[in-house]
Formats: sequence, structure tokens, C-alpha cells
Amino acid sequence: MAMRKLETCFSPVLYEPELHQGSVVVIIDVLRATSAICTAFENGAVSIIPVAGIDEAKAYKNRGFLVAAERDGYVLDFADFGNSPFNFTHEKVEGRTIVYSTTNGTGIIKLASSAGAIVIGSFLNITALTNWIIKRENDVVLFCAGWKNRFNLEDTLCAGAIGERLIKSSLYSTICDSTLAAMDLWMLAKCDLRGYIEKVAQRKRLKEKGLDDCIDFCLTADYTGKIPVIENGILVNTI
Amino acid sequence: MAMRKLETCFSPVLYEPELHQGSVVVIIDVLRATSAICTAFENGAVSIIPVAGIDEAKAYKNRGFLVAAERDGYVLDFADFGNSPFNFTHEKVEGRTIVYSTTNGTGIIKLASSAGAIVIGSFLNITALTNWIIKRENDVVLFCAGWKNRFNLEDTLCAGAIGERLIKSSLYSTICDSTLAAMDLWMLAKCDLRGYIEKVAQRKRLKEKGLDDCIDFCLTADYTGKIPVIENGILVNTI
Repeated sequence: MAMRKLETCFSPVLYEPELHQGSVVVIIDVLRATSAICTAFENGAVSIIPVAGIDEAKAYKNRGFLVAAERDGYVLDFADFGNSPFNFTHEKVEGRTIVYSTTNGTGIIKLASSAGAIVIGSFLNITALTNWIIKRENDVVLFCAGWKNRFNLEDTLCAGAIGERLIKSSLYSTICDSTLAAMDLWMLAKCDLRGYIEKVAQRKRLKEKGLDDCIDFCLTADYTGKIPVIENGILVNTI
Repeated sequence: MAMRKLETCFSPVLYEPELHQGSVVVIIDVLRATSAICTAFENGAVSIIPVAGIDEAKAYKNRGFLVAAERDGYVLDFADFGNSPFNFTHEKVEGRTIVYSTTNGTGIIKLASSAGAIVIGSFLNITALTNWIIKRENDVVLFCAGWKNRFNLEDTLCAGAIGERLIKSSLYSTICDSTLAAMDLWMLAKCDLRGYIEKVAQRKRLKEKGLDDCIDFCLTADYTGKIPVIENGILVNTI
């Protein structure tokens, strides 16, 4: 049986769509977008519509949708909330469709549109996610969202954690230096993930804005068994 | 005294020229370009003219220049040699100006042209290089050439090794996740660098082409005290 290929991409500008047609692409944006999305589905959201522009998000708001919208960590004035996972409570999101304004995320989903499947990854759903990936027979790309197109450590560590599980299944092989680096960094960090995350840049950025209350939560493994995937441009839960 | 900033860039597509005006930019392409350049100067080369195109390299050849030119590891037929450091022997290069055809390298030099200084880094010149950097009072960017715009481990490890020395001087600080990752990977690899490099993708690529004989040499610290810098688009030795 041919081994499935495992690759990792550290930034949207490093993504090569033509190489990944048919692959499962796992989008990872630990602080905080993909953690928030997993939380929303755990708390009963029906679907999430990602939109790029603020005007588009406003138009949805005027039509009665719940809207999550922020820029650089700050909630936009017309929105119901920003993208802290703590906003996506059961009370607010159960049975609802949420419109999620995210320039970065929308761009990534578009970039990966020729993939076989696009799925949302975070520590919060890591076991369910890796089991779901393994059941499919596709090559896999771990697509770190990064921060403003730059490499970041928290997404890399999550990619390393997912990579470690996939390689341990003996169904995947990798010759990708990014995957090897991510798994080695995960190996270094995993015994004290919260301690390790203290030094990352996004931790400092969120702290300065008073938005760091959710970091411990975002590093929690297996808060949910939900596996959000993109279907026709919209996020829905696979299970 | 303000700390100098230390940053790392993992690929030419991640480089942000507008952020690094005035910085010292260290170009790192361990297997094999920057190792070959350091070797050439150690063996007495006077200068190296980087050119992008094959036609340009041919034109120099016709004018009597020594030409190093290869694509994907293979020497071009009109060239004197490719970019294995072992080609740049004392007998061949002493007192000579070498024309070096490198699409990737020329692009990187152009990208970094608004920097305060562009210097060539490798394990071969690491102590001389870091001492030279420390004497200047600039911010520093460790610019990994990567492979076809992708992240690679060997350049990252060299960046980590340089980063570790700069941080230890207590003159530099970093909030750059790429620098932190590079230093952590270096910490993991440094006790057995040759063993660690066994797993990297470029090691496999060079081996398949029978071009891996120079890898051990390229991982040798302090073969030379030369510090090649770009002056008016041409590489010369600073000392």
C-alpha cells in the first residue's frame, strides 16, 4: 500500500495549490479563529459563513444573522461579537448560522479551494480530527494560517501535534522539512505547552490587548469531537 | 542602550523589504551556495559576480571569466564548474573574479537591496560572521534562502546557530517566532548536526544526484574567517 504524503505549509504565501489538488487540507489558526470555529460547532452552531469584507458582514447583520467580526483583535461596532472562542456560547449560537468576517481566513479558504477537502484543525478537536483524516485515503497538508502571512509558533505546534499522530499511524510518510520541523518543535513543547506558548509573539499581542484570557482554553486537547469542513464555501460540521 | 532587533525569514516569499531598511541581512543557503561562496573567498577569490540568467553567464564566459553555473544541482555545459564548494579550489580561484549564475541567489540579493548591508552566512564562517555582525549596531535579519521558495531545515539550523550566538551577546532581542523556532531546532540538532541533517529533504535530493559528498564539509564550523558582503551588486570579502 502506498504511503500517503504528509506536508505542512507555514504561511498562506507558501501554499502551492497546484500540488495539493485532491489532498485533505487542514486549516490551523489556533489563536484564535479555528479554535473559535470548533467551539461554535460544539455549542450547537449549524453553519458558519466566512465572508471577507466588512460591508458584506454588515449586509448579513441587517438580514438578521449573528455576525462575528473583528480586525486585529478588536470587535467591529456593528458585530455581535469578535473571535474569542468564549463568545460562541451555547446560549448565543445554538441552532444558528453565524457570519464570520475574516480577511485572512477567507483568503486561505479560496487558496485551498482546489483541494479534495478543507477541514478546520485546532487542539480543541485534535483526536476527532486525526481519526477523521486517517479514515480518508488522501494525502494531507497542514496549512498554518500564520499571522499576517508570517510563520507563527502556535499554529506550527498544532501542526506538529497532528503530524506526530498521523506519522504514528504508519499510514503517512513525509519528506517535507516543514513537517519535520513542526514535529520536532512539538516534541520540545508538548511537556509544557502553556509554558512554551508564553514566548510566542501572538501571546504577547493578545496580552497587550487584554485578549489573552482564552489562550489556555485554545491549548486544550479534545474539548470537542466536532470536525468543521468547508462545503460550497460554508463551514458545516461533518458529524 | 536599545536592544537590537533580531528576525529570521524562512523563504524569499516571506521577506518584507520595507521592514528591514538599514538592517544587516545575512543570506544563508547552506547546501550549497553560501558555503561555496565562503570557500571561494577562503581560497583566494577576489570577487564574485552574481548573475541571474544563463545567457548573461555565457557572455561573461566568452569574455574569459571563470563561471560557476548550475541548475538543480547539474553543471551547465559551458560552465567551469557548478556550486559544490569543492570546485572552488585554491588552484582554480586564487586571484580570480568568478561569475556565479544563480536564479535564486540573484533574486534574494535584489529583494534585500534596501538593507543596510548584505552579508553571506554559513557554518563555515559562523564565528567571524557573528563577531562582525556584533560590531555593527544594526538590527539583523537572518534570511534563509530555502529551496524553491520553501522552508528548509539546513538553513533554519544555521540561522538558529547564528541567532543563539547573537542572543547570548545580550545585545539583541527577538519577538520573532521564526527566530525562536530556529534557535529551538538548533538546540535539538546541535549535539549531532550530521545525524540530524540525515533527515532533511535537500540531503536526499543531493544524494540522489550523487552531489552529497560536500554535506559534512558544509556543516563544519569556522573553516574560514572570510565575510563576503555585497558591494554594488558584487560579492567581495570584507577583511
